[in-house]
Amino acid sequence: MSTNSYPLLTTVNDPADLRRLSRAELKTLANELRAFVLESVSRTGGHLSSNLGTVELTVALHKVFNTPADRIVWDVGHQSYPHKILTGRRDRMSTLRQLGGLAGFPNRAESEYDTFGTAHSSTSISAALGMALAARQKGENRFGIAVIGDGAMTAGMAFEALNNAGVADANLLVILNDNDMSISPPVGALNRYLAQLMSGQFYTKARDVGKQVLKPVPPLLELAKRLEQQAKGMVVPATLFEKFGFNYIGPIDGHDLDSLIPTLENIKSLKGPQFLHVVTKKGQGYKLAEADPVAYHGPGKFDPAVGLVKPATPPRQTFTQVFGQWLCDMAAKDERLVGITPAMREGSGMVEFERKFPTRYYDVGIAEQHAVTFAGGMACEGVKPVVAIYSTFLQRAYDQLIHDVALQNLPVVFALDRAGLVGADGATHAGAYDISFVRCVPNMSMACPADERELRQLLTTAYEQDHPVAVRYPRGSGVGVAPLAELDGLPFGKGEVRREGKRRLAILAFGSLLYPALEAAEALDASVVNMRWAKPIDTELLLRIAASHDELVTVEEGSIMGGAGSAVTEALNAAGVLRPVLQLGLPDVFIEHGDPAKLLSLQGLDAQGIQASIEKRFGARQASSKVA
Amino acid sequence: MSTNSYPLLTTVNDPADLRRLSRAELKTLANELRAFVLESVSRTGGHLSSNLGTVELTVALHKVFNTPADRIVWDVGHQSYPHKILTGRRDRMSTLRQLGGLAGFPNRAESEYDTFGTAHSSTSISAALGMALAARQKGENRFGIAVIGDGAMTAGMAFEALNNAGVADANLLVILNDNDMSISPPVGALNRYLAQLMSGQFYTKARDVGKQVLKPVPPLLELAKRLEQQAKGMVVPATLFEKFGFNYIGPIDGHDLDSLIPTLENIKSLKGPQFLHVVTKKGQGYKLAEADPVAYHGPGKFDPAVGLVKPATPPRQTFTQVFGQWLCDMAAKDERLVGITPAMREGSGMVEFERKFPTRYYDVGIAEQHAVTFAGGMACEGVKPVVAIYSTFLQRAYDQLIHDVALQNLPVVFALDRAGLVGADGATHAGAYDISFVRCVPNMSMACPADERELRQLLTTAYEQDHPVAVRYPRGSGVGVAPLAELDGLPFGKGEVRREGKRRLAILAFGSLLYPALEAAEALDASVVNMRWAKPIDTELLLRIAASHDELVTVEEGSIMGGAGSAVTEALNAAGVLRPVLQLGLPDVFIEHGDPAKLLSLQGLDAQGIQASIEKRFGARQASSKVA
Repeated sequence: MSTNSYPLLTTVNDPADLRRLSRAELKTLANELRAFVLESVSRTGGHLSSNLGTVELTVALHKVFNTPADRIVWDVGHQSYPHKILTGRRDRMSTLRQLGGLAGFPNRAESEYDTFGTAHSSTSISAALGMALAARQKGENRFGIAVIGDGAMTAGMAFEALNNAGVADANLLVILNDNDMSISPPVGALNRYLAQLMSGQFYTKARDVGKQVLKPVPPLLELAKRLEQQAKGMVVPATLFEKFGFNYIGPIDGHDLDSLIPTLENIKSLKGPQFLHVVTKKGQGYKLAEADPVAYHGPGKFDPAVGLVKPATPPRQTFTQVFGQWLCDMAAKDERLVGITPAMREGSGMVEFERKFPTRYYDVGIAEQHAVTFAGGMACEGVKPVVAIYSTFLQRAYDQLIHDVALQNLPVVFALDRAGLVGADGATHAGAYDISFVRCVPNMSMACPADERELRQLLTTAYEQDHPVAVRYPRGSGVGVAPLAELDGLPFGKGEVRREGKRRLAILAFGSLLYPALEAAEALDASVVNMRWAKPIDTELLLRIAASHDELVTVEEGSIMGGAGSAVTEALNAAGVLRPVLQLGLPDVFIEHGDPAKLLSLQGLDAQGIQASIEKRFGARQASSKVA
Repeated sequence: MSTNSYPLLTTVNDPADLRRLSRAELKTLANELRAFVLESVSRTGGHLSSNLGTVELTVALHKVFNTPADRIVWDVGHQSYPHKILTGRRDRMSTLRQLGGLAGFPNRAESEYDTFGTAHSSTSISAALGMALAARQKGENRFGIAVIGDGAMTAGMAFEALNNAGVADANLLVILNDNDMSISPPVGALNRYLAQLMSGQFYTKARDVGKQVLKPVPPLLELAKRLEQQAKGMVVPATLFEKFGFNYIGPIDGHDLDSLIPTLENIKSLKGPQFLHVVTKKGQGYKLAEADPVAYHGPGKFDPAVGLVKPATPPRQTFTQVFGQWLCDMAAKDERLVGITPAMREGSGMVEFERKFPTRYYDVGIAEQHAVTFAGGMACEGVKPVVAIYSTFLQRAYDQLIHDVALQNLPVVFALDRAGLVGADGATHAGAYDISFVRCVPNMSMACPADERELRQLLTTAYEQDHPVAVRYPRGSGVGVAPLAELDGLPFGKGEVRREGKRRLAILAFGSLLYPALEAAEALDASVVNMRWAKPIDTELLLRIAASHDELVTVEEGSIMGGAGSAVTEALNAAGVLRPVLQLGLPDVFIEHGDPAKLLSLQGLDAQGIQASIEKRFGARQASSKVA
């Protein structure tokens, strides 16, 4: 990028540089920063709308507070690019979300300004409160600041933190960044309440702002001035947040430095927990993103002058799309089906389902715990819930899975998208642990489809059971095995032999790594079994294979510890069958962001890696062979 | 029990019987019911205070609503004894919490009136909303009713459910049973707010009621009559719950049928989500329990005329007490230590710690998610948090463990009480899965002390690490190995050989089952290793043992699936060492309530069972023997 475009921004290598600037210069800085974010994200891909919305807030926070001594915790963290750019990482933005490059979320290992790693939502108030109370305990006069979006406020842990913080004598500031949008459109009572908090006029105008690509002047300036006078409690007599023990201030215009800076300065002198309500607009300053913040939530690379364009050749069908199609087809066939999502309509492929079956679609907000127990309640009544949830987010509802669904053996289908490595989102989003944490739960079953066709089939199988079943599938596309039109299932708990090798070595594959395993098996002339189910293990098939093979290899895109390979060895142990087993899967480390195929390759989970691991352990092709 | 004492109660074998009674008869019924609860619990042990508090509410609900078609979900469920007694289970109350007897919580398998199994807190609104919306979908005109205590309202998932329910067009009634006490005394902003909701006078008098053991007249009648007139919105102009979209009614006297029944009748005719705030007193009608509801929360057997008496000989020290002592001792030594509990001060043994170190004690309320991330925030600042949490409740904070603590490798100590089977509380509280779900998380370690002395030592070891460590220990007492006074640790990640057998068979024990394993080993003349750590596995020791033994047996009080035994086989697989392994532990089923020792015995996890399993698999003593 040419430094000419950003003459002031390029002089800011640290918030201390920023703190020396005048108010007028800060406005120029904010404009350059917004332009930089847009140019940068258009080149790397990444989160856009949320970052365009936090430009002024970021500038104001670093101006007023003494970062990094004062701790800013960015909830979710996908709005932290302006923060990264202002805290010495401007030149590395071109490496964003790439292997070895900057993370797409705050990361403690990356900068002292990233005080707490985030990515899953609604953690910021807990963390900032912990920091503020730790500071008090150590006698240090510092602020803990949580910046949290309205979508993230719906998750239970945010309320747990509010409830605890409201009675704490802490230098805590919670900034509600109210942009009226989580990833999916907002739902729920809280959101409706926040809308009421804003005057109708202000709210309407906030939605109409921004008709140009990059604006030199904050658009809400006028309105905000008026609101600044009203701000102290005029809008509503007592807000929800005051009932939680906070001093509520707002709403103020989050794109207006003339509102933000004096308000934050005032807050610094107040005692006890403070709650500042700022209103921002996702995509602010880039009209295409303002008009469609969902589409520009996390775009790939694009030309800012043109915006997103549909690719000429449609990309290969994703597992997510296969799920979405199955959901619609099964709903058409069985009117008992309901679809439940914790605020992931787009990500989980449920847009079409909502359109076709609006009364059977439940977006419960960012509320995974509630989603699962709500599904349990419905299942008690003979309704058939399908909970679409990313593998990594099911971690939020683990107790509900055990205590509310599995213990009562309720027939709920869990569609676990993003199982395995997820690529650019990195370690925070890895769906690496689900096999381990699901299969230890009694009554649960877990299917691992190997391709698109099997996903559709195994969803049907899962749906037909009278107990809870999880179906895990990876992010992105499979090998391209087209799903069949029918809604037929596959036998429950049964795998299949995909290749009979001459060598007495069998690869037992779970999920989409079946295909690299088959490739490796060609080279090795090994047998390959598509196990399909991590639980129950197809013991009959396993023992048959063990009887005709001397060496076993398990392959899975998930944690080796406690994973499907361990299920295999448990079954062998229980049967008293002794075979050497090589367990291939994800190692016991957090794996950072990067290109998904490259990451798998680095873990030795592509065909070459699988072959190499097997050869290292059991020798090359000629080492053993079956008796004809 | 003599039926003479309960002439009316014994005629009620079903809520339909109850619905035929007059208001005056219902008051008599309530009095008999209260006396029956007291007599019954005094004979079996169980939850007392909470059940004395819900007598009238239970009578009123079954009178007004058409149960079981209308669904009552009892949050936590430890207040459901009156409900059990009125729904055909009176005669089985003598079997409460015993093997094969009634469960201490609602249980779908036990009665159609138990619409949703509960025990962990704060699930009821989600479940009742699911039921109400399922009814709507099926065109059935039924109510979903959640009865939830004020303590349970602090947990995040209750707010997630409120947020979702407030905008739902559902026949949902949430009854806040406000008794100003969870198990530990209440904390947090919500509780303070609820106290404000009640007029000072009412609140004071509600605390002073009840000077006799069993009262014939509801004590709050007068006050409640006055309040009934005030009830519709007079007390406060707009409550928190109205902001969530509910129609708020209350507070009313939860011990006055003349308030409860008309109010509930009125509610039946209202549309949309309703929120009824009732005020009850834990222990109501039994003065000893009123005076000390914490002590009478879950007493053992006692004489109602005498109350609880301290046993003449103090019981053996529990693991919980060893933890509590260690916490105080380490806090005295290291001023960085803070103790965090999610509303389990008594259960986790932190009463003394709070007394000695009030500014370093954090009870965050029933808020496991917040507790863990809050600890993470503190750990970022060099404070050293110890989170005391039951194994089963850590399930609520699993994502926070992974995403906020482990991923950032923050030094937080997790003291996991109630690991393994818990006895009378049953399957809902079993700490059976922690080894499986913790050890698959990178950066985590997990210690399994075998006795009281090791618990103290391994807590110190855990505390000394610069990464997160969980220490799991069972409910109740150990074998009685007295802890040492010093605060010395044991080597990190290292086990020890406890017995060298002549037979080439080694038992690898994790945790307190070391002692029955040693007993079994005497009979078998096997070797025994006290592994001490489920993660990391002491691979060096394991391989040494594998080299000198032909057969291995793993023993753990936890799920076999993905548990410590699987960690052993993973380590053997990784090293390419082939040994037959017998994995002993908890099977893949939910294990109901009963005497803990009996339950372990039924699972073959006492000395005899371990010996029998080993003999069955590897033969009796003479089968193999070491070369001298």
